[in-house]
Amino acid sequence: MINIVLVSHADLGDALFRAAEMIVGATESLYSVSLLPEDSPEGFGEKLEAALRPIEGEETLILIDLFGGTPYNVAARQVLKDNVECVTGANLPMLLELIMSRDDASLSDLAEEITRAGQESVKNLGPMLHR
Amino acid sequence: MINIVLVSHADLGDALFRAAEMIVGATESLYSVSLLPEDSPEGFGEKLEAALRPIEGEETLILIDLFGGTPYNVAARQVLKDNVECVTGANLPMLLELIMSRDDASLSDLAEEITRAGQESVKNLGPMLHR
Repeated sequence: MINIVLVSHADLGDALFRAAEMIVGATESLYSVSLLPEDSPEGFGEKLEAALRPIEGEETLILIDLFGGTPYNVAARQVLKDNVECVTGANLPMLLELIMSRDDASLSDLAEEITRAGQESVKNLGPMLHR
Repeated sequence: MINIVLVSHADLGDALFRAAEMIVGATESLYSVSLLPEDSPEGFGEKLEAALRPIEGEETLILIDLFGGTPYNVAARQVLKDNVECVTGANLPMLLELIMSRDDASLSDLAEEITRAGQESVKNLGPMLHR
């Protein structure tokens, strides 16, 4: 099963997991690494390394909260590994798509699929309703 | 100042605010309404009404975590009010854009702007790096 690692400011990653599990129930192979106000970039890097060490070599999709900022700056280079994909702009629809599709697609296809799902999930309701 | 109301499963809205405030500092006129596992749709509707009552008639942008599901089903109809816009797929980049731009744009332009910002924030890093 493809691992899901959520990398975020504050406890956003944990909250995304709690929200997703309210909808799809308890799931496995979820990891969250949070940048806390007291963390230096180096300290955050150590936390990320510690989270990734037990799953080193396994297929892993890293969802990052924001393009830019410390979590991104520290985590994005992981994409240089063969067995890792990284997608930014984490939201609940992407995470749900990822949890539900991770047994059915290759890692690179999954990264494409959740990127599209994430982009399409952002909708401005007013114009849609021809208000 | 345009009000920001985050409507979500679990404490995702609160966590988005905490993450945003780590980056831009403490901000005003932020409201979060959380669907908890024990809430019925009716109970959640009452929580939302209670949150909106003090800002009734003011310009308000409602960010919804997911298109579909109870928070969406209960909150989306608010867009029928003249002074309310609703955007789904809430993520941190959209919220940051909203906090930083809400003094400079009309409510409908702001809804368009953060929709675009949200869609563009979702990036698949592997192909971008021509790996």
